[in-house]
Formats: sequence, C-alpha cells, structure tokens
Amino acid sequence: MAIEIRSEQLCFGGVQGFYSHASVETGTEMRFSVFVPPQAKTAPVPALYYLAGLTCTEETFVIKAGAQRMAAALGLMLVTCDTSPRGLNLPGEDDHWDFGSGAGFYLDATAAPWSAHYRMGSYVAAELPALIEVHFPAAPDRRGIFGHSMGGHGALVTALKNPDRYKSASAFAPIANPVSVPWGQKAFSNYLGPDRSAWENYDSSLLLRHRPLPYAILVDQGDKDQFLKEQLHPQALEEAASASGQELVLRRHQGYDHSYYFIQTFIEDHLRWHAARLIG
Amino acid sequence: MAIEIRSEQLCFGGVQGFYSHASVETGTEMRFSVFVPPQAKTAPVPALYYLAGLTCTEETFVIKAGAQRMAAALGLMLVTCDTSPRGLNLPGEDDHWDFGSGAGFYLDATAAPWSAHYRMGSYVAAELPALIEVHFPAAPDRRGIFGHSMGGHGALVTALKNPDRYKSASAFAPIANPVSVPWGQKAFSNYLGPDRSAWENYDSSLLLRHRPLPYAILVDQGDKDQFLKEQLHPQALEEAASASGQELVLRRHQGYDHSYYFIQTFIEDHLRWHAARLIG
Repeated sequence: MAIEIRSEQLCFGGVQGFYSHASVETGTEMRFSVFVPPQAKTAPVPALYYLAGLTCTEETFVIKAGAQRMAAALGLMLVTCDTSPRGLNLPGEDDHWDFGSGAGFYLDATAAPWSAHYRMGSYVAAELPALIEVHFPAAPDRRGIFGHSMGGHGALVTALKNPDRYKSASAFAPIANPVSVPWGQKAFSNYLGPDRSAWENYDSSLLLRHRPLPYAILVDQGDKDQFLKEQLHPQALEEAASASGQELVLRRHQGYDHSYYFIQTFIEDHLRWHAARLIG
Repeated sequence: MAIEIRSEQLCFGGVQGFYSHASVETGTEMRFSVFVPPQAKTAPVPALYYLAGLTCTEETFVIKAGAQRMAAALGLMLVTCDTSPRGLNLPGEDDHWDFGSGAGFYLDATAAPWSAHYRMGSYVAAELPALIEVHFPAAPDRRGIFGHSMGGHGALVTALKNPDRYKSASAFAPIANPVSVPWGQKAFSNYLGPDRSAWENYDSSLLLRHRPLPYAILVDQGDKDQFLKEQLHPQALEEAASASGQELVLRRHQGYDHSYYFIQTFIEDHLRWHAARLIG
C-alpha cells in the first residue's frame, strides 16, 4: 500500500497534495489528491470524497472548485481520485469522451474487455478509503462523499450501496437516473452487458426506491444546465425519495449551468452540509 | 471597439464572461475575461485589473484563484487579459516559455521584430480599460490593478507610471526588480534593446525610488517560492519604498510557494484591500 508523492503545496494553512499508487482493483497506477486541513495536525479529521465528472481527472476539482478555503475553516479533509483507469490500450478506450478513459462511471465492469480493470466501484468504496486511512490522518468512522455529474451519480450510488461506510452524501447535477439516459445506457451496456437488470444496481433513483439512507441527501441543480433534460433527470431522484421516505433536499438554481462556476458558487453549502453531519 | 462574446456563465450571482476583440495596440485578436458582480445591475462598480504571470492566459486567474466569491460579496468587477499577443509567427516567438508568447512583460517593445505588436504596456494601461468602460458597467474613476509574478511586475509598473489612472495596486510574488534578474534581463534586452537606461522605465523598484504613489501598496510573498532568490527580489522594492517614503505593506508568508495555491490563500485579503480604496 505504498504511495508516491507527486507534489505537496501549502494552501490555506493546510497541505494540497497529489499522489499516485499501484491500485489492486484497476491493476494500474492511479492518481489521487488529498487536501489535509490544518486541524489534522492535532487529531484525525473527517474525510470527504469527491467524484468528478466525464473527462475530468483528480485535478479538476482541486483547481476549479475553490473548496480548500472552507475545508480549512471547517476541518475537513478532501480526497479526489481519477475518473477511470488510464493507459490500458483496451480497444476503443480513448475513442469517446463519454466512455472509457475519463468515463469509468464508478462501477465494477462485468463485460469484456473492461471487467479486468474498470473497477472504479470497488476502488472508490473500499481500496481508496483504506489507502487514505493508512497514509493520512482521516477518521475512518467519519466519511462523506459527493460529486458532480457522472461523479454525482457515483457518489449517490456509492453511498446508497454502502450505508455503513458513509455518514453524509451530496451531489451537484448528478446523472440521477442513468438507465434512462444516453450517457448511462452507453456506459452500462458496454461495461455491464445487455442485461438491464444488472444496470439497476448502479442507478441511484432505482436504488433509492428500495433502500433509503439514514441521513438526508443534498442535491444542487442549475436550471440552465445544458445536460439537464437529456442526461440528468433529477425528478427521478425526487420521485424515488418520495416513494421510499428518503429525506432529499433538491435545490434548483435559476440561471446556473453544468460548469465549475456553478459548483464553486454552492461549494460552501455542500462543505457545511457534510461538516454538520461528520463533525456536528 | 466591438467585442465578441465567447462565453458567459452565472457565478456567485454575477456573470463570468470570456470575450475577444481586435486590438489596435497589438494588431491581433486579444482575449480577455470580465467578472461582473451582481451589484453592477444597479450602478457602475469599480474594476480591478489582474495581470497574470509567465505562460498564463486570460483564463488562469479565473479558474484557479477563487476570486469570484469575494468579488461578488464586495461588488468588484474583475478583468483579466492575455499575457502577450499570440499567433504572429515572429521568429523565436514560441521558442521560450519565458519570452515571446505568454511572456509579454506588460511593456511596449521598441526593438524589432517585437515593436510592431508587443505593446502590452499601452494595451493594459489604456486600450483595455477604455474597451471595458464602453462595454461593461465599470466606473472609470475607480480602477485598481494587481497581478502575479510577471503580472505583479506589470501591475506595479502600470500603477507607478499612471498615478492618475489607478487608485489601488497590489501584487503576489512580483518580479520586483527585473533589471537585476535573468527573466527581466532576457525580456528587456530583446524587447527594449541593449541600452539599459530604457529598461529602468519598466522596473518597479527603480520607478518607486523617484515617484511614490499617493496610496499604499500591498505585496504578498511566500518564503518557499522557488523563484524568490533568483528572480523576484522583493527586498529591492522594500528598499525603494523606504528611500522614497512609499507606504508598502510587504508580507512574507512562511511555507508558501509561487503557485495559485498561494494566491487563493490570500486573494480575499487583496480584494478587501482594493475594495477599501475603491469603494471605501
């Protein structure tokens, strides 16, 4: 479980670092980032995992979200990872921006040739937190998870499938019902095969109908989001929450789009939301 | 004086836009960005110009500095521009990361072949503000200027040479005495020719010795900055301020480097500094 330090830089009195390690799940070198807030000098702190969207890497959120300021103020560790394995040279891996490299969809692929390496589901839910908790002062009983777009999907699914492992979850503009939209159908049919019953295990709206979480979920969505109608479908999440009794705070924001300008506008709200549940 | 809208996105209740126009000074298409805070819906607001460092573009600060939050809170417009003309195909233009494209040094070149186009000094001090004040709700009597590294040099020099045009100035890790360091000597000898007396007109420490500004200057510098000893020389600025009676607040920050992680840590202080002088 060794990690390699790629860079570490002081930021808001904490340390913003980039690292890599040899992943057992993906069989590749995986890169990740950790922001360690100043409070971690004296005691372990809660760790909040962020999953990024299509085409992003472990670096996108770190550069564009403006999250370190409030994480340093609240005492939250921030962890990001890459969005897929890289450099496998699988056929078609780099042919599409919404499938393959940069588009792992945070699931464990079962269809060839993806199944041997595209195991981002287990990577995010188990391997990465275990690694973080060995190498950084992260409190194992206080994990939160959130994400954007494909990563919002990943965060919600990971939280729903692992109710004992996270104490808070939120999302920006998640792909909330992937089985019913083109991005999800393309990814799931290739990674999981044609049997749609296998897809349901990775759809937050379908999971939520049957297993609500013991904590509230926060979702922010811009009404000028260019992907809202075709790809995101937050209303499916809302209907599922209503059916199962899940507490869901879904906020629709007038004029905001799908970008990190939207995310940075509401990042403080999300960090405070997680801190309230992870620190109290 | 037409401008082309490249993108406009809602951010913290304001609008983050990217634009381009045909510049008279450079003879090229120049790109710039403007963040218009929500307060500008009702009345003109002060405009704070940011000049970026080597290899950067008009986009770097917008993405990496986390400035929009506080600019929206304080009611400051933020303007960024590119760091040089682009695409001229002058001999050697793209051969060096610290000279030519991306390294205009915010001066008016006098040596061939640069003199016809590399006129970032006049572009920043006159053409760009005039353009901004026609197309955006910027108050012409309340301009501030700041920047980072090469852009810190540019901001201080522009403020010192135009005491009537700006009411506030600050810098992150500026190249404070370019005539005495390799970056400055390389740029000035190529853009301005071998006569060193011409260089003095673009050196903030030399200018400051003879013409202090009627307002205080803020400079932040990290003590782990990898360029501090060879390229930046803030002590020259300190000595010049002391000699001329210029009020200078030079803060040295333990452990911070030259990056935007340093800038984002102290951006709020700079925006408040400018707001105090531009809004009161």
